[in-house]
Amino acid sequence: MTSLKPFLLTGFEPFCGSTVNPRRAWVNPSEQAVHALNGQTIAGLKIVGIILPVDRQSGPVVLLKALEEVHPAAVLCLGEAARRPAISIERVAVNLLDFRIPDNAGVLITDQPITADGPAAYFSTLPVRALLNALLAAELPAELSLTAGSYLCNQIFYTLMHALAAQGSKIPGGFIHLPVLPEQAAKMDTPCPSMSLETDLKAIRVVIETILSHLVNNGYTQSENAG
Amino acid sequence: MTSLKPFLLTGFEPFCGSTVNPRRAWVNPSEQAVHALNGQTIAGLKIVGIILPVDRQSGPVVLLKALEEVHPAAVLCLGEAARRPAISIERVAVNLLDFRIPDNAGVLITDQPITADGPAAYFSTLPVRALLNALLAAELPAELSLTAGSYLCNQIFYTLMHALAAQGSKIPGGFIHLPVLPEQAAKMDTPCPSMSLETDLKAIRVVIETILSHLVNNGYTQSENAG
Amino acid sequence: MTSLKPFLLTGFEPFCGSTVNPRRAWVNPSEQAVHALNGQTIAGLKIVGIILPVDRQSGPVVLLKALEEVHPAAVLCLGEAARRPAISIERVAVNLLDFRIPDNAGVLITDQPITADGPAAYFSTLPVRALLNALLAAELPAELSLTAGSYLCNQIFYTLMHALAAQGSKIPGGFIHLPVLPEQAAKMDTPCPSMSLETDLKAIRVVIETILSHLVNNGYTQSENAG
Amino acid sequence: MTSLKPFLLTGFEPFCGSTVNPRRAWVNPSEQAVHALNGQTIAGLKIVGIILPVDRQSGPVVLLKALEEVHPAAVLCLGEAARRPAISIERVAVNLLDFRIPDNAGVLITDQPITADGPAAYFSTLPVRALLNALLAAELPAELSLTAGSYLCNQIFYTLMHALAAQGSKIPGGFIHLPVLPEQAAKMDTPCPSMSLETDLKAIRVVIETILSHLVNNGYTQSENAG
Repeated sequence: MTSLKPFLLTGFEPFCGSTVNPRRAWVNPSEQAVHALNGQTIAGLKIVGIILPVDRQSGPVVLLKALEEVHPAAVLCLGEAARRPAISIERVAVNLLDFRIPDNAGVLITDQPITADGPAAYFSTLPVRALLNALLAAELPAELSLTAGSYLCNQIFYTLMHALAAQGSKIPGGFIHLPVLPEQAAKMDTPCPSMSLETDLKAIRVVIETILSHLVNNGYTQSENAG
Repeated sequence: MTSLKPFLLTGFEPFCGSTVNPRRAWVNPSEQAVHALNGQTIAGLKIVGIILPVDRQSGPVVLLKALEEVHPAAVLCLGEAARRPAISIERVAVNLLDFRIPDNAGVLITDQPITADGPAAYFSTLPVRALLNALLAAELPAELSLTAGSYLCNQIFYTLMHALAAQGSKIPGGFIHLPVLPEQAAKMDTPCPSMSLETDLKAIRVVIETILSHLVNNGYTQSENAG
Repeated sequence: MTSLKPFLLTGFEPFCGSTVNPRRAWVNPSEQAVHALNGQTIAGLKIVGIILPVDRQSGPVVLLKALEEVHPAAVLCLGEAARRPAISIERVAVNLLDFRIPDNAGVLITDQPITADGPAAYFSTLPVRALLNALLAAELPAELSLTAGSYLCNQIFYTLMHALAAQGSKIPGGFIHLPVLPEQAAKMDTPCPSMSLETDLKAIRVVIETILSHLVNNGYTQSENAG
Repeated sequence: MTSLKPFLLTGFEPFCGSTVNPRRAWVNPSEQAVHALNGQTIAGLKIVGIILPVDRQSGPVVLLKALEEVHPAAVLCLGEAARRPAISIERVAVNLLDFRIPDNAGVLITDQPITADGPAAYFSTLPVRALLNALLAAELPAELSLTAGSYLCNQIFYTLMHALAAQGSKIPGGFIHLPVLPEQAAKMDTPCPSMSLETDLKAIRVVIETILSHLVNNGYTQSENAG
């Protein structure tokens, strides 16, 4: 008897942002999505959900520990992107830390590499075009994005891809940005696009199903996947 | 025994838009919201829902006929505003028809008044600030807007206010623009903010409840309201 | 011998904005444009330039005094509109004061009429469509706008149109918003469209020439215009 | 006697765009800037200006030939970015061709690498933070950008950095996007930010002077620079 490897899904705790925009504090759509899907089975894969701290030091540590413990079939990291109107499928992670606001530990970093000896960037190894097409076919607003920024979302994305490359791992990994939730947009100083958690969850399910199809099309089977 | 007057809620059929953006055709959040709420009772008021044609000639005719037949306690007209990220509470209706795309009858009008002998504009008689505050308090993204455009939404808004003024009517009336639905945003050429129908319906309920509070605060009672 | 009536051109002093965005303070493209054109003759009309205070009380006083003293053939009021990318030809002035930031006297007003007994709005009596066409033909970025906001720009626009209406004056009057200058955009927290003073001045010349053509086409002559 | 190496400045011919937006055709701010500065001496460096075709095949060929022939002290490639409001200093070139409109040869490429054996991305080797600070200090609107897109601008940027890396060259190279010119914005369907050629030229001079300061600070001298 074989057991399927799980699907690793990560989200972030809310940005503290207490000095920047205190009214937005302590909600994050990626956290809520991970809480909603953790433990569920989608497309035959058990979802293991992990919440990452918004901290340039402990965030990568928690991700890498999860990667090691979960032995996932694929990894999708989620984050929040204020002002973006659609599900943003990120294509590129860059080796750059350049914050506009401090992380939750209160540290603001400018123009530093994530890893001194890493390459300038990694491409997502998720089937990004297929994800876009599947989301649009499901009538969910989505776009391909060429930048995940230079804050902690990009750091986690880069850290993931760097770890997979270092391990010679073939498992697909990547990052998707979610718009803010309506309740966050309602607290902003100027009108801001939002997306409901229901729409987020529909989108993430489509994404995970499409990633599994991609795995299967590339020869992924239960036996390879056996623990 | 007295019977409460109903609440008149109007929406628009989809823009045909067949030559402009055929993929968007035949969905309109205001139509779906009116279908969902028609016949329901909110805050003690029976909702009478009417769908208006996207036609500069028959649209006002249908509205005025409904106004006459329904004898409403208040009127809220709804429309769709692509590219807007939040519930837009319109403050001002202007006496202007100036279309960028034809109406569903295929007619494009430039720089014409709606009514040759009407004033330049009317203000909404809805409690717009109270509506904004109530929506934000309910964590729903909303904004006050100073322009309802110069297309058919503004025409219906102006037609409503002009009719109420001509009748010396004291009932509150106004217009709210809804963002496009996610399924519409998914079909646009460039990413566009959207809002789910669930969020729309929550917002419209809050709006109707707030309008009733306003009516009651201004001395509105069942006996005045008797048919 | 007859003397042509002058053209009244107004601009605003800079927004103080000291608590909002101190780095932007004390520059205003409308002030610089009026300084550059004051005393010049464009299309045969002498330009009389006036700078208005950003003050809800003294601003209208200065405008109305200038209107009385200058006896202009036409009036164009200019203001600054941050975030707008093009010359914005305003169509509608509304009877509303609703500020997001205080005026330079430190007062913030919410939801008040400009004039308790005035109509909801006035349309510009400038030939707005001809102005748009002339600007675009001259390859200058321009747009018609349906809202001049609810701050001091709109107040001055409304005050002008209300005064002209009260006097039964037939002279054309209206308002145009200019984007910020590049040196202002360079000091903003997020990237913002700008327009150089040279482009502003080209545009204002085209506007004044087009207004004079409109006057002449409507039977305006030197003899009518005699002092 | 030593002779200073020149500064290589490239721009693009206009996008044909004949089927997309024929009214915009045949102007490009980067071409005009290069024409205006070609042959001039800025900060002691002779500017050699080259115009690149908007063609995924011949564009890189022309760039690489110029690089070989000019033996520049530094290279700055310029391009046009519609909808961007400020001078955009690009940080990252990615190994991706993914066009939304065809190039001038009529070819539209989707999801292809620029160079099959190249890394995912290169960082600019211009002193990007110093360039931003110098532009803002000169009151010119500017921003750092994390994406140069996936069209021909990014292709040229990547091609440049890949060639410099392959040669082991230490000369600084990078890419800057310019907003459209006012005359282009005047021909667009919707209002679009623009920047005048005068502002562009001021900015490019500041950029070149800052790059030379950076070279000198890093030990660059005439003798090293001798032909």
